[in-house]
Amino acid sequence: MSLRIDVSAPTPDPIPHDAALLALDWGTTRLRAFLMAADGRILATRESPQGLGALAGQGAAAFEAALQTLCADWPLDGLPAIAGGMVGAVGGWREAPYRDCPAALATLADPALAVQVDCARVRGGRLTLLPGLRWLPPAPELPDVMRGEEVQIAGALALQPALEADSWLLLPGTHAKWARVRDGRVLHFSTHMTGELYALLRRQSLLARLMPAEDAAADAADPHGAGWRAGLAQAARAQPGDLGHALFGARTLGLSSRLPSAELPGYLSGLLIGQELRCGLQALTADPAPLVLIGEAALCARYADALRQLAPQQPAPLQLGNTAPHGLWHCARRAGWLDG
Amino acid sequence: MSLRIDVSAPTPDPIPHDAALLALDWGTTRLRAFLMAADGRILATRESPQGLGALAGQGAAAFEAALQTLCADWPLDGLPAIAGGMVGAVGGWREAPYRDCPAALATLADPALAVQVDCARVRGGRLTLLPGLRWLPPAPELPDVMRGEEVQIAGALALQPALEADSWLLLPGTHAKWARVRDGRVLHFSTHMTGELYALLRRQSLLARLMPAEDAAADAADPHGAGWRAGLAQAARAQPGDLGHALFGARTLGLSSRLPSAELPGYLSGLLIGQELRCGLQALTADPAPLVLIGEAALCARYADALRQLAPQQPAPLQLGNTAPHGLWHCARRAGWLDG
Repeated sequence: MSLRIDVSAPTPDPIPHDAALLALDWGTTRLRAFLMAADGRILATRESPQGLGALAGQGAAAFEAALQTLCADWPLDGLPAIAGGMVGAVGGWREAPYRDCPAALATLADPALAVQVDCARVRGGRLTLLPGLRWLPPAPELPDVMRGEEVQIAGALALQPALEADSWLLLPGTHAKWARVRDGRVLHFSTHMTGELYALLRRQSLLARLMPAEDAAADAADPHGAGWRAGLAQAARAQPGDLGHALFGARTLGLSSRLPSAELPGYLSGLLIGQELRCGLQALTADPAPLVLIGEAALCARYADALRQLAPQQPAPLQLGNTAPHGLWHCARRAGWLDG
Repeated sequence: MSLRIDVSAPTPDPIPHDAALLALDWGTTRLRAFLMAADGRILATRESPQGLGALAGQGAAAFEAALQTLCADWPLDGLPAIAGGMVGAVGGWREAPYRDCPAALATLADPALAVQVDCARVRGGRLTLLPGLRWLPPAPELPDVMRGEEVQIAGALALQPALEADSWLLLPGTHAKWARVRDGRVLHFSTHMTGELYALLRRQSLLARLMPAEDAAADAADPHGAGWRAGLAQAARAQPGDLGHALFGARTLGLSSRLPSAELPGYLSGLLIGQELRCGLQALTADPAPLVLIGEAALCARYADALRQLAPQQPAPLQLGNTAPHGLWHCARRAGWLDG
């Protein structure tokens, strides 16, 4: 049980009569359920903390119970149902093996590529779990994996069909993804642990000692503050292997009064995002295509600002919000489930 | 109170009659006390977990009590006493302000530069706390600080006088230091958070999930394993800003079976140490001088191996153990306290 008050679950929705799809974005920390119309409109949304972190290894019954509890009064009977994200990882409802890149996004839900699990009430008693993507380049390049972001990418391409031919998609977050798309396929991608490094260093390292008590809202309050700019400037000067040194600046800039304590989280954020961009921009420059940001608006705005500082010649990227529901709907539509 | 069994404290030492100095290496996690002869021999050693982490902010009486408890039966009366390390930080026994680089190592204990605190039983009722060092370069270069390493550096120079004229001293650890020494002075230095990043990522990140249960001995058991070599090779290919991506290899190399789980800690260690060396070697190449490793033998051996892989043209570095006691003794001797 979680102590978090979940405002979305207990709200009684008016039962939508044109529901055509149950779409689940089932990640590590949250289960998000969307009741969708055949044309892609979101009719109702529910959310619970029953993510993989809460349910991992508890077996299929625990996952089905979490879903039934969240959607008890939804008219699911006979609806096709689809889920993407960590629910298909090892320890999830059932493992949905990775698809290797290059991977077409339109066919993620193909029965030959996805897996089905028993789930009462939905159409055919079967819920489809989408596979994640894997990139296995020849050594010494590093392999990579994603689960959930491929659904957001599919949604972005469905919403902005011009991206399908040729684009770079950047999804900031705990494990930020840079994905290269061409002709409707993810050619390859790479993960940067930017968000996780920030959280570890902000909360649990020596660097946290000089910083004000953590308050995510305050940390993000002034994305153009002196700390943020100093972190970006440090990233602009980055040399191979210097991150472990530059991070210590989040202590020494404070000790030497070059930055006030309140600006130190901004320095850390600017340094980490800036270093990620240095690396990603090198790949983008080597293989140019329009860049798109997908995800939470405030975080995307930070990345867009960092891009302006580090690559002023780069056109301002298109910014999309959470495209996961649309991606799930698009997969279902391309699988022919919404034709009836 | 700590649950750690402290084997060194309760051992009754034969009381040495030629004691001439009480030297304290008082860091964040440990207080180490050395009873030394006028010629620099260590006559007895004691150690307790009463470091700054246990005592910070508790005031002078707590520090004095920790020292008296540890050394209750030592013949301290009339001995000069000197302490280096975090005991002189903010929140320590008393703050010993930093000395700015370039800083002469021989004069760390000068009364005009160090601070004295009241301490019963030792000579004059006063214990000398050595200052740390600070490097304040013009922006945009980052400031830096050390507390305790300057004592080890002083000890290394006293043990190996040839280093005094011209050397690079590398002190691996939680916050590794690269110090440039010329004419007996630390010209400048830089910190790399290599050890702290390793500990955070090894224990508390997503990367830990695929790794075997932590066992520091096992992690260090095969410094030449496949994971270590892969991490070094990844560091050899490092581009600016790519650490956040390369770290994720400690997950994906495991998921893709390119490395067995037991080799993933080695990959993490090789990557982090290798990236630090990439950065440090750039500075060393720009301003060449003999390189010396100071610190715990197994960790220094890892660094020496990484140096062989990443910079085979570099002469094998001299490796020194814990030079802190000798550094404290040397400071006392240069201050004239051991002449009588």
